[in-house]
Amino acid sequence: MLSPARLALAAAFLLVLRPPAPASAARPIVDDKPAPSEATATARWLAAQNTWGVLSTISSDLNGAPFGNVVSYSDGLPGEGHGIPYFYLTTLDPTARDALADERTSFTLSEFPLGTCGKIDPENPTCAKLTLNGKLKLVDLQSPEADLAKSALFTKHPEMKDWPKNHHFKIFKLEIENIFLIDWFGGPKPISPSQYLEFGRNQHSVMSS
Amino acid sequence: MLSPARLALAAAFLLVLRPPAPASAARPIVDDKPAPSEATATARWLAAQNTWGVLSTISSDLNGAPFGNVVSYSDGLPGEGHGIPYFYLTTLDPTARDALADERTSFTLSEFPLGTCGKIDPENPTCAKLTLNGKLKLVDLQSPEADLAKSALFTKHPEMKDWPKNHHFKIFKLEIENIFLIDWFGGPKPISPSQYLEFGRNQHSVMSS
Repeated sequence: MLSPARLALAAAFLLVLRPPAPASAARPIVDDKPAPSEATATARWLAAQNTWGVLSTISSDLNGAPFGNVVSYSDGLPGEGHGIPYFYLTTLDPTARDALADERTSFTLSEFPLGTCGKIDPENPTCAKLTLNGKLKLVDLQSPEADLAKSALFTKHPEMKDWPKNHHFKIFKLEIENIFLIDWFGGPKPISPSQYLEFGRNQHSVMSS
Repeated sequence: MLSPARLALAAAFLLVLRPPAPASAARPIVDDKPAPSEATATARWLAAQNTWGVLSTISSDLNGAPFGNVVSYSDGLPGEGHGIPYFYLTTLDPTARDALADERTSFTLSEFPLGTCGKIDPENPTCAKLTLNGKLKLVDLQSPEADLAKSALFTKHPEMKDWPKNHHFKIFKLEIENIFLIDWFGGPKPISPSQYLEFGRNQHSVMSS
């Protein structure tokens, strides 16, 4: 048999030979999930850890039917999320056009793509899901908020800054009016927009890893 | 140095010792993605490979605003998808209540959680996204279709069959009226519901791996 020393050497050799892990962002490195008793923390964690979700509008093209679209977003620099999702959208896409005609919007996030639900089904209430409802607003590109939003977006989505200028991407933000969080059995947790937005303000980098 | 035979033995030993890969369904094993020129195939591939998406309704609770919710679904047995998404929903949840009051529904899927977009941003048009719009209909639990739908759902979501009986889960399906697929530059691809539903009917298990 092999001596432990030789086995260690072989192990090291195999580790060197092993191909690098795929760099897929579908299995990001995520911070620890808050406990189910910490509903507001869990909502903010979902917003901080995810990088994409589904933005639903009232469709102009489809006579007022709902229309959900996959979008990227950021609620802040990594570890410094503020809970407000910012988006980088073009009116070449129906979602931005819809929102400019009717601001009512729903933004939906799942814990499932973070990988922390394991074998639990995506619809199981313990695999957390968050829906933020409110109004999708244009952010004035000349405002200080736009600089913060751009920095938040381009840090989490580096390729955005190279997207075609002639597509006239604009920054939108969701003004949150209603929060629907399911992270355990027993129905949605009651969280007010102010509870959500003020969470962690008096703590030091609560969302940082 | 170790001989090749001993190295092979060590490798086998390490493989046995190696902890099993995490069983997270966030990195499922997926079939090869069709080429961007194959729009209908890509739409059906997204429906067949994903297991969850966001179902958006017109919200009764929020005065007609859109409301997106994370749901599981199945379009058929693995390798035998038919393109029609079936859902297992309870009216304890607002989505089912909304749909019973207003059938207009949008169902949104992303390629991103499949892991095949790699480092491409979720909003990049080459990371495919599919939105199926139509009417969310109850499936009669006594019908043969309900048996097929249950089989499709419970195979991909084994825990569903053990979900609480007193939650009165019902089977819904999306009657597709409009298809929005982006899988490349240049805007959404025109796909009719009949093209989508008839895709592969005359081929042998086109969606199987």
